[in-house]
Amino acid sequence: MLPASRFAPLPAFAHEVDDGVAYPRGFLAAGVASGVKKRGKLDLGILASEVASVSAATFTSNAAAAAPVRLTRETSDCAHLRAVVVNAGNANACTGKQGLADAARMRLLAAERLRLPVEQVAVSSTGLIGVHLPMAKIEPGIGAAAQALSAGASGDFAVAIRTTDRHAKSGALDVRLAEGVVRVGLAAKGCGMISPNMATMLCFVTCDAVVTAEAWNELMQSAVAASFNRITVDGQESTNDMVLGFCNGASGVEPGAAGLAQLGEALQGALLALAVSIVADGEGSTRTMRLKVTGARDGDAAEAVARAVANSPLVKTAFYGRDANWGRIMQAIGQALGKDGHRALPARISYEDVVIVDHGQPAALDEVQQGRLLDIMHQPEIDLNVALNGPGAQATVYFSDLTHDYVTLNAEYST
Amino acid sequence: MLPASRFAPLPAFAHEVDDGVAYPRGFLAAGVASGVKKRGKLDLGILASEVASVSAATFTSNAAAAAPVRLTRETSDCAHLRAVVVNAGNANACTGKQGLADAARMRLLAAERLRLPVEQVAVSSTGLIGVHLPMAKIEPGIGAAAQALSAGASGDFAVAIRTTDRHAKSGALDVRLAEGVVRVGLAAKGCGMISPNMATMLCFVTCDAVVTAEAWNELMQSAVAASFNRITVDGQESTNDMVLGFCNGASGVEPGAAGLAQLGEALQGALLALAVSIVADGEGSTRTMRLKVTGARDGDAAEAVARAVANSPLVKTAFYGRDANWGRIMQAIGQALGKDGHRALPARISYEDVVIVDHGQPAALDEVQQGRLLDIMHQPEIDLNVALNGPGAQATVYFSDLTHDYVTLNAEYST
Repeated sequence: MLPASRFAPLPAFAHEVDDGVAYPRGFLAAGVASGVKKRGKLDLGILASEVASVSAATFTSNAAAAAPVRLTRETSDCAHLRAVVVNAGNANACTGKQGLADAARMRLLAAERLRLPVEQVAVSSTGLIGVHLPMAKIEPGIGAAAQALSAGASGDFAVAIRTTDRHAKSGALDVRLAEGVVRVGLAAKGCGMISPNMATMLCFVTCDAVVTAEAWNELMQSAVAASFNRITVDGQESTNDMVLGFCNGASGVEPGAAGLAQLGEALQGALLALAVSIVADGEGSTRTMRLKVTGARDGDAAEAVARAVANSPLVKTAFYGRDANWGRIMQAIGQALGKDGHRALPARISYEDVVIVDHGQPAALDEVQQGRLLDIMHQPEIDLNVALNGPGAQATVYFSDLTHDYVTLNAEYST
Repeated sequence: MLPASRFAPLPAFAHEVDDGVAYPRGFLAAGVASGVKKRGKLDLGILASEVASVSAATFTSNAAAAAPVRLTRETSDCAHLRAVVVNAGNANACTGKQGLADAARMRLLAAERLRLPVEQVAVSSTGLIGVHLPMAKIEPGIGAAAQALSAGASGDFAVAIRTTDRHAKSGALDVRLAEGVVRVGLAAKGCGMISPNMATMLCFVTCDAVVTAEAWNELMQSAVAASFNRITVDGQESTNDMVLGFCNGASGVEPGAAGLAQLGEALQGALLALAVSIVADGEGSTRTMRLKVTGARDGDAAEAVARAVANSPLVKTAFYGRDANWGRIMQAIGQALGKDGHRALPARISYEDVVIVDHGQPAALDEVQQGRLLDIMHQPEIDLNVALNGPGAQATVYFSDLTHDYVTLNAEYST
């Protein structure tokens, strides 16, 4: 089932099903143990459509993008992918020409086994960086995964793409449209950074609606913009981040304009649930905040203010300490606005329904409000609202707190 | 004495003297206990020149600049200041119109006691934000400080401006120029953030050379640019940061062009020593890194890359863990360069003399080099060099690690 969050309600016409990424008709998945991870853990997966599909892809914008990202982005047909081969335990990042050759070899082997042109196959990796892929393990692993493909192996696939995630992140939906029921499947991984090197966020989405490549791309880009692009654990973007969505039409159900909008709404809810669960699973995280900034000069300013607050170590440690420290929020906002931004400083800051800054001044809280604030600071999910003193642009980000465990997890690894 | 750092050597013609901010001729200082801090701690200081002086001021660019910053910046004559009144324990920030009135009252009282026009007096505060100044304590404190002014009270002044600094940060120099000896005095405070709210960096500089306001401003701006503007503890800029330099000509020594350059060099060395000591004293900090980025497209790119690395919680926790984790440095650089920056990725990354990435590839370290690297990671000060694959622009920043104590100090305070 999808991770639950009050920040990510599903629309009423989307019904959760106890299944995963291969739930939509015509999709197969597999997860096997190639030996890259120790103790026989699943670490290599394939997801494939049995029939032609359209696809949409979003990649990290990190200049040090890993070999699989560069290969897929630059040499696969990202609007018509039918399959992806994924390995966990080794990110194939900062691996130079050998890394590109290894990623190409992974793609070629998967394509041969699936009898697909290489352009219809994507490659994805997560794990250690700066180490060459152990191809002697990966190659037979791809063969074994291709052999194991089935509509019932969504769970294996979801486990095989994980690294240090505390919780599996997958799910499936029946989306009930006027035109009929279409299915959606999902599998994701990510939890901030991962020992020993860095975070990677991967997400694979499947759907069996009949849609054009352009429409599917629009649905996916909108859903990603409102979910994975709205989260921050520590402001660090990985070399390997990738979101791939496949839509193969196997349901025979072709949504009209209203149906497409509904499908988009369901996708957005599901991706947001996964994205928020990545924040909640952020290394050492104990709580997740939804920060909404309103009243900014423009969208960029709203975004800058929201990111400044969400990535401030002072703000993040205050939430860990259950301290409604609005001074630190004000400081981060002031820094983002810069010296000419004085007029835009917050008119109002509230934690859930408790207004703590009003008309730009600290609000005097009575005992009841103070008690309510204390309760709020102990919630696992907290709504934080900042109303700037300006026109109307807004931005929302989801962020985690900064804890002792974050430092422990990231300091106590040694190469 | 100035805090020692191998990153901040003083030039041979600058000689340390065991004194402080009132060491230059014609300066007086005082530090008294006004009662804002508990247990009779010194918390209010005045620094003043007995004769006319020129001055230079640098303020925070935070939009939420505190009342004393706004008052001084907007209504004092920052090129001809003769005195500053400083209080610690209350930042007079986010205090609205009342805060501005309180800051103006501080300035007026100090000016009256010193028999100066208000325009020649600056006001500075550090401490709690969002709380109005207890003027009933501050007002008599200003009187007491004015009464206590002496050339021998530099130590009291340095203590009175501190908040949670572990070490006092002050010093004095004889600068031996061809034209004669001029004196420099210094007092600073800052250590990252301070309980309960935020960091403030304050620095006061005195000098008795004969220089024009323009020349003094140039010397100060250059020294600040190469010192306080080069440090980061956690990327958070305070509402109250202020650097003020006073130069009163009381030595009668008027440096020529070469002398001015030497005076500038001495100022830069001294300010860098104070700036680096603020990083070393950063909350919970265990080590200080000097990061030099070279080969960037332009100065802005060099700066962006340096700041991205220096503020990455992943990089900072790795240094805490004594882990030479170049992958995290590469990730931060890649994020700063963005998706079109692939060609500029580092050609070389080195920790002191150990090259860990060479020609863009991980270097194979032999046992001797690995041992050397382990030693380096245990140094209190580490030189980190990143050579990007580009033309020639460079930037240097000094940063601290991110530790359990940082989280403890900033989470375990509760309003």
